[in-house]
Amino acid sequence: MKDLALSKVYQLLEPGPVVLLTTARKGRANVMAMSWQTMVEFTPPLVACVVSNADYSFAALRATKQCVIAIPSLELAPKVVEIGNCSGLDTDKFAKFHLTPRPAECVVAPLVVECFANLECKVVDTRLVNKYNLFILEVVKAWIDPAQKNPKTIHHHGFGRFAVDGEMIQLKSKMP
Amino acid sequence: MKDLALSKVYQLLEPGPVVLLTTARKGRANVMAMSWQTMVEFTPPLVACVVSNADYSFAALRATKQCVIAIPSLELAPKVVEIGNCSGLDTDKFAKFHLTPRPAECVVAPLVVECFANLECKVVDTRLVNKYNLFILEVVKAWIDPAQKNPKTIHHHGFGRFAVDGEMIQLKSKMP
Repeated sequence: MKDLALSKVYQLLEPGPVVLLTTARKGRANVMAMSWQTMVEFTPPLVACVVSNADYSFAALRATKQCVIAIPSLELAPKVVEIGNCSGLDTDKFAKFHLTPRPAECVVAPLVVECFANLECKVVDTRLVNKYNLFILEVVKAWIDPAQKNPKTIHHHGFGRFAVDGEMIQLKSKMP
Repeated sequence: MKDLALSKVYQLLEPGPVVLLTTARKGRANVMAMSWQTMVEFTPPLVACVVSNADYSFAALRATKQCVIAIPSLELAPKVVEIGNCSGLDTDKFAKFHLTPRPAECVVAPLVVECFANLECKVVDTRLVNKYNLFILEVVKAWIDPAQKNPKTIHHHGFGRFAVDGEMIQLKSKMP
């Protein structure tokens, strides 16, 4: 894995991919599937995400205030769905789904080696957690796997139906 | 345009499409391009979105607390980019880009007839506006254009590069 400039993080999350979110607490790592997240700021990269208080990850995220957002490509889609179908309450998902955790640099939550990008995050604002389960995260370190060329991401339409990235188009935008 | 059940709104926004956001104030309607938004709750559908205070729409959104999120399909992509390249400060974008505004049912902001879905929204939480320009919206009414079959959406990767929806896949998910 290679360093990714923090100023480029938005290019990974703005398109709306399904992602994985890892946490670690009391020596146990966990991973969940998530697609309710958005960029909030370019630099430093801030992200808003919803982690339901019904999710096992919620308590770890709130207590440790640290997580990793790992972005899987299409090849991992079947595993991503299975990760979403079970709970860390009674399952070691890294073991069950043969995912490789790697220690992160700035947070206790692990990176997911199989994902093409990994974003180490710290919770910086919890004002909307009680009412909406909405966390504001700052991405403090980002990794990209240069071996995964042009990864296609998946986009959830509900009930296991996903759009896969298709054609890439280029238009004359003044926007970053 | 046809009613869409509010319980299905998340299926439109969760995949992360580029959208349009309309506002109206003092008899003037405006429209901007946006892709920093996420679902926050299924029912009633709540959405978090970032509208920069550098955007002309910001003042109207904050003052009226109403907007419409309109979802364009691929065919509108060139117009969406042009909408993002200019400001409502000095441009009547509905006129310039030949978009058809239609009165909404519950909000002062107009629907965009050319879009395949239109979501009438009211701002319900402004606690994160001052710090992050992040608004919490409630979708109070949703419309779908049944004449637009299987619309493909676009997903911004930065600097005018967009992924277009490709193949749809179905996996065995227990998630809504």
